[in-house]
Amino acid sequence: MSQTVVIIGGDAAGMSAASKIKREMKDANVIVLERGEHISWSACGMPYWIGGVIESDERLMVLTPEIARKKRGIDVRMHYEATAIHPESKTVSVANLDTGESMELAYDKLVITTGASPLKPPISGLDLPGVFTLRSLADSQRIYAYMINRRPQSAVVIGGGYIGIEMAEALRDREMEVHMVEMLPQLMPNFDLDMVGEITEHVQEKGVQLHLNTRVEGIAKDSEDHKGKLLVATSAGDTLAVDMVIVSTGVKPNAELARDAGLKIGKTRAIWVDDHMRTSDPDIYAAGDCVEHYHIALGENAWIPLAPSANKGGRIVGENISGGDTAFPGILGTAVVKVFDYTVSTTGLTEAQAKASGKFGENGEDVGAVIITASDRAGYWPGMAKIKVKMVFRKSDGKVLGAQLVGKAGVNKRIDIVATAISAGMTVADIGMLDLSYAPPYSPVYDPVQVAANVAIKQVGG
Amino acid sequence: MSQTVVIIGGDAAGMSAASKIKREMKDANVIVLERGEHISWSACGMPYWIGGVIESDERLMVLTPEIARKKRGIDVRMHYEATAIHPESKTVSVANLDTGESMELAYDKLVITTGASPLKPPISGLDLPGVFTLRSLADSQRIYAYMINRRPQSAVVIGGGYIGIEMAEALRDREMEVHMVEMLPQLMPNFDLDMVGEITEHVQEKGVQLHLNTRVEGIAKDSEDHKGKLLVATSAGDTLAVDMVIVSTGVKPNAELARDAGLKIGKTRAIWVDDHMRTSDPDIYAAGDCVEHYHIALGENAWIPLAPSANKGGRIVGENISGGDTAFPGILGTAVVKVFDYTVSTTGLTEAQAKASGKFGENGEDVGAVIITASDRAGYWPGMAKIKVKMVFRKSDGKVLGAQLVGKAGVNKRIDIVATAISAGMTVADIGMLDLSYAPPYSPVYDPVQVAANVAIKQVGG
Repeated sequence: MSQTVVIIGGDAAGMSAASKIKREMKDANVIVLERGEHISWSACGMPYWIGGVIESDERLMVLTPEIARKKRGIDVRMHYEATAIHPESKTVSVANLDTGESMELAYDKLVITTGASPLKPPISGLDLPGVFTLRSLADSQRIYAYMINRRPQSAVVIGGGYIGIEMAEALRDREMEVHMVEMLPQLMPNFDLDMVGEITEHVQEKGVQLHLNTRVEGIAKDSEDHKGKLLVATSAGDTLAVDMVIVSTGVKPNAELARDAGLKIGKTRAIWVDDHMRTSDPDIYAAGDCVEHYHIALGENAWIPLAPSANKGGRIVGENISGGDTAFPGILGTAVVKVFDYTVSTTGLTEAQAKASGKFGENGEDVGAVIITASDRAGYWPGMAKIKVKMVFRKSDGKVLGAQLVGKAGVNKRIDIVATAISAGMTVADIGMLDLSYAPPYSPVYDPVQVAANVAIKQVGG
Repeated sequence: MSQTVVIIGGDAAGMSAASKIKREMKDANVIVLERGEHISWSACGMPYWIGGVIESDERLMVLTPEIARKKRGIDVRMHYEATAIHPESKTVSVANLDTGESMELAYDKLVITTGASPLKPPISGLDLPGVFTLRSLADSQRIYAYMINRRPQSAVVIGGGYIGIEMAEALRDREMEVHMVEMLPQLMPNFDLDMVGEITEHVQEKGVQLHLNTRVEGIAKDSEDHKGKLLVATSAGDTLAVDMVIVSTGVKPNAELARDAGLKIGKTRAIWVDDHMRTSDPDIYAAGDCVEHYHIALGENAWIPLAPSANKGGRIVGENISGGDTAFPGILGTAVVKVFDYTVSTTGLTEAQAKASGKFGENGEDVGAVIITASDRAGYWPGMAKIKVKMVFRKSDGKVLGAQLVGKAGVNKRIDIVATAISAGMTVADIGMLDLSYAPPYSPVYDPVQVAANVAIKQVGG
């Protein structure tokens, strides 16, 4: 008898698992339950569609339900929501959101890929028209439609993380007046404070009005303004009257279904899985933004919801359900972000994260960090840009813990050299000795990450 | 009493060693003997000065004798040639090329950084005016002066390796008619034949007239042409009448001094050194283009003269002479080359090299290779370019042996991910699992090197 695999959630992780299973086990009955409007879209591309870099949202649809059904033989059920998991009977309660009908679905293997949801700050007015979060493709379509229909001239972006910054750039590309309100004293809390100065200035040069150390206290509709401005009250006492608000204050893992079913939840509040992406129930797997992963530099689990681990995790689930034996070595939170003319990238731990972890001396005494600035190409090459590199390492033995890069060029793939080195357990001395590519149009003879590593060596040991 | 260190050769390796020693041991008497006109120039930048990308040759001088003397306290002696090494008496015979005077210099430690010299094909006419090799900065100045004074309109470049291709591009940038004659059936013998097709077409599209499988048989001056064309006779029976000839048919290590002194010479004909860059004589070190290095993917010594290992080797010599204990893990021959609008890069072994090495099955049965094509950025990103990736690996266990990349963007630092992975002894499965950076403007969700690795996995084991 063929196996039935039920997958809750049809984005990257879920569809990667489904596709892998159907490739490996043609007979398997693979049912994907998706409560939303789309499957498998490029969430990371959405700000660029909103900003006009990408022409059509069709380009963001990696896979449609029709193609998944016809070409891959996956039983995709749109507007189906899983409402409860019953591990003892190996069934899932499912609601058809269109008809209101509910049913029980039996599974041999279950895959939870429920993703993450926007974390909404505890303020009034979040449900007013013109106030948006950006998580699903439908969210971006709502924002796009509002921009076309209402021609907003101004916006507040709440939150200065990756998405907030990408959205600020998108709205500036649409020539809107943009305020960004961030409650922390810095943009991009995944970077150390001493690495974001240039970016903070640059964002302001590009016309984003920054409000750091500031909370939004509430959003109201201006009843006196016939255009219906939104009034955003801040903790600094300002009232920003704008046409649109983007709430990008982070996300939380969608772990309720798993928790209610008695599955193990990690310290991070995301679903716990072993290195084979199996939950605490041997017939239930989970992957994507709803799970925590082993963090290679930290040495314990962390929750960093990013697309590459969702794709890999889904594929690993598919391989293991299909009889494979694939282990996931873990994540480093490697990321790259475009910030107008700059690129910033990070991998592993920041200095602040390493010190706060308690893993490297009680007060982080064993955490070393250096910052250098170097040319991305030969110093004489026309158009050469400066890159700032921070390298974080264990002082006692030089083991690399993380790196951050900021610059106008050459920042993206260089971070991956360090990510690879951390995965291999390399020290700063090892990085200094790597045989990396050199030619004047592309790199100086010592790559900037090696320059940083060679400076770091001096702090190691003694 | 302070130590005397004599260094033979004042380019990258020699000056790196000298500078390191003076930083670590202020009292040391460091004498650099340089027979040529310059020290420490960027040889890799020379084609770009000739082609007009870089405005002045001063930009290529990393260090002048004056600055080395005044700022670093190095006793640089220009136009001094070492003519013999006497390990028993720890002296060097030296000739002052300006005065003809000769002398004996005593050393405590000797460093040989004699570099490499152009390999000249056995043909007539190499000493005719207008026929050049490109190795020293003085060579490039001669070419530059000839171009300014004689306004050559056409050229033959003999040899289709890195330098030949860079020079062909430089001369095309100067709007010259350019022929390239290569005796092998392909350009860039450091790449597999199946990776150079696109480049071969591209070079021709850019106006380079290619003569593959062709030898130059001789060069003569055309006595009947008042402009004095050079007549280049090829094995194909053509006579190419041009104004200028560049001979870039490879280089050979300058190992004569070391060999005559009884130092161990490797199978590659370059100077043998241990992992501390020490020759077979404990007081004599060597580094740079005159030495062979351990090749990490090959598992034995190889001679691949490139700037990064020369710089590292020189610094390691300096550290060890100064009382340090630094070992060099070896090379991978990692390289990147601009070929007009394309970039090509390589690390480790090509499929052909791996098979020919006899290290992976008698007839190379254990060598696997895959070629894939992938987007360098998200598939929907405007300006996205296709990258062709070849990955070479050991079939039995998936260990990565090498990679080659060809494309119009995103080719340079990606090769370094693979170089780092090979240094760490990773398998193709390990590469597939790396947590690499992703964002639509910079990379697809699976990096192209991971796409190649994931395809390669299917050939591993069974």
